[in-house]
Amino acid sequence: MMASENFLILDSILTDSGFTYPGRLKSFRTKWNIRASEMSKRTFNPIRTIVDNMKIEPNPEKAMITLSIGDPTVFGNLPTNEKILQAMKEAVDSARFNGYSPSVGYERSRDAVANFYSCPESPLKAKPEKSWEIDLQHMEALIDDKTACILVNNPSNPCGSVFNKSHLQNILAVAARNYLPIIADEIYADMVFSECNFIALGSLSRNVPILSCGGLAKRWLVPGWRMGWILIHDRNEILTREIRHGLVCLSQRILGPCTIVQGALENILNKTTQEFYDETNSILKSNADLCFNALAMVPGLRPIRPCGTMYMMVGIDIDDFPEFKSDIDFTEHLIMEQSVFCLPATCFEYPNFFRVILTVPENLMMEACNRIRTFCEHHFQSQEHSSVPDSECYK
Amino acid sequence: MMASENFLILDSILTDSGFTYPGRLKSFRTKWNIRASEMSKRTFNPIRTIVDNMKIEPNPEKAMITLSIGDPTVFGNLPTNEKILQAMKEAVDSARFNGYSPSVGYERSRDAVANFYSCPESPLKAKPEKSWEIDLQHMEALIDDKTACILVNNPSNPCGSVFNKSHLQNILAVAARNYLPIIADEIYADMVFSECNFIALGSLSRNVPILSCGGLAKRWLVPGWRMGWILIHDRNEILTREIRHGLVCLSQRILGPCTIVQGALENILNKTTQEFYDETNSILKSNADLCFNALAMVPGLRPIRPCGTMYMMVGIDIDDFPEFKSDIDFTEHLIMEQSVFCLPATCFEYPNFFRVILTVPENLMMEACNRIRTFCEHHFQSQEHSSVPDSECYK
Repeated sequence: MMASENFLILDSILTDSGFTYPGRLKSFRTKWNIRASEMSKRTFNPIRTIVDNMKIEPNPEKAMITLSIGDPTVFGNLPTNEKILQAMKEAVDSARFNGYSPSVGYERSRDAVANFYSCPESPLKAKPEKSWEIDLQHMEALIDDKTACILVNNPSNPCGSVFNKSHLQNILAVAARNYLPIIADEIYADMVFSECNFIALGSLSRNVPILSCGGLAKRWLVPGWRMGWILIHDRNEILTREIRHGLVCLSQRILGPCTIVQGALENILNKTTQEFYDETNSILKSNADLCFNALAMVPGLRPIRPCGTMYMMVGIDIDDFPEFKSDIDFTEHLIMEQSVFCLPATCFEYPNFFRVILTVPENLMMEACNRIRTFCEHHFQSQEHSSVPDSECYK
Repeated sequence: MMASENFLILDSILTDSGFTYPGRLKSFRTKWNIRASEMSKRTFNPIRTIVDNMKIEPNPEKAMITLSIGDPTVFGNLPTNEKILQAMKEAVDSARFNGYSPSVGYERSRDAVANFYSCPESPLKAKPEKSWEIDLQHMEALIDDKTACILVNNPSNPCGSVFNKSHLQNILAVAARNYLPIIADEIYADMVFSECNFIALGSLSRNVPILSCGGLAKRWLVPGWRMGWILIHDRNEILTREIRHGLVCLSQRILGPCTIVQGALENILNKTTQEFYDETNSILKSNADLCFNALAMVPGLRPIRPCGTMYMMVGIDIDDFPEFKSDIDFTEHLIMEQSVFCLPATCFEYPNFFRVILTVPENLMMEACNRIRTFCEHHFQSQEHSSVPDSECYK
């Protein structure tokens, strides 16, 4: 009886001796059935998922202009600096950076980063587009004891916004009140236009621990080199040993970035001249102005002027384009008709916007804007004066 | 009454109105308590954990010789090839590899790897050290329907062994019988001594899917460059779309290796001459012979002759060293007395062995062996003729 109960409950098997093992059962595969891991299934890239599912067939009569992916190297108009390439070749020639580095990076490379970021400049200016600021009340309403941290992306991809000092201080106050550390995605640090200033959260925080993420990808125009860092600002030593140990453990998953780039890092950070950064920002600013001014005149579009990064968000009055049901639909048709590829902002869970990149050469930027205008003028059907059914009025 | 029941069961709270929300409870943090993530806690590096806990105080009168970590660049006696450095500098100069690459790598770099490995040489020879072969019966006994794959590391770190054709075919038979794919860690492919041959599992498999992992780290002597690949051998297309999709998803966690190394890859693979590989293997073989011959004469040690890689395993007759209770203890004292650092094989869950690296210059290899001999002669107390208590005899 007991054996039969075990059979039912534990799914165990009767052995030759008539005895049942109540413990772990062993069964075997009888055919090929190889499954992907849960980890791979949890790995989800929203940009790729949406973009890969777009039915992209550009207009064969128009050369394609891709304004979707933020890679400043695509058009060749924004080369990185000769000093940076020189640093890489010196690192190769030195033959000192071919072996394993510590998982967390060479001490000297980390020193170089620490020194480079130890004296952040801090003058500030108001932010022109209020709407990208965080709704702090809403954010605080979402916080409970399961919240692990607040993630702040500033300067912002995809918004191109740069938060001002008082807004950053308000964010810090919410974090302090709720005892939450902040992960600051500051990869676009200092990639801001001349009328704005970037203020690092780490320079403002008095007690909230800040983990600031940065890297060579953006400001140095070499996104493929895969060199990043985490700056830990923790004046009051609130982060436990466990957290620092956890960061070291996680670094052992990849065992450090390419040692050649690490070897070049000190020279890259210290020998690249201010002119290079200024020139990059000036080109981005000029394209931002050009693109904003052009699209602001287009019926049904509402571009939001950026303060930095290489992006501009453009709102779509989707009701004024009744042929299209979403930003994805809108951008798909833009490719098919005008061969201009903008990223639908549903990728960022922000529907009825699209993101354009500002790293294209000026003439292409202009051409792209003209095509977007042609497209919108063709499909725009203003709903402003259309009659609203009575039943809707009383809702 | 119902409210009070809910209170007990759902841990819900009584609101001002006396009504209880049976749903999710919200509570708040009242102090700093930032915890490391479960993922970071699951990230466990056994070598680091053991090595970091060793109380390492080398003998200040002897210069340290580190035979523990397999990094061929440490001593400078095994520089990588000039062609390889040239390829890197050309990749930097071309300015074509600074932007993002696809997560799975550039098409051209992947082609270069595929072409390089598409015609594996396959003559074979017997393996000298039988004991490192897999106990296939034991392995098969461990397989059940929860087993996802078989992982084969050949040539082997830490054993230095190279499996022969029939052993590899037997492994394939077990995999086929149990419908299990094989992950083949073949990072030491072709890093074998002249009397052995490496046979890629992918070249032998008729139906079992093989995921072969390789990279530049070992054979090209640049472990820090962080360039690896997975070769998928799947003649019968058993791997589902799900698996290939899963691999692509996982590649998006890191978004591809450093683009400069990717850009140099084609030249690295195709322009590095056979002499470079032969010279490397010849130096490793010469050190292996030297080290084996020296340690084979040492009382209490049983070196196992390797066929490839940069490692040799050395067994310790631990009972003959009654002062030491384990390989960790043994290697710790070896550092303290002789300033020679070997890796205790408990790091590989293989106690009473230590691993030495074979990439040191010949004179240092000799010096290290002499010091190990001095150490062993000093502490060796043979238990061979010691009396065994009666109570033990009848066990």
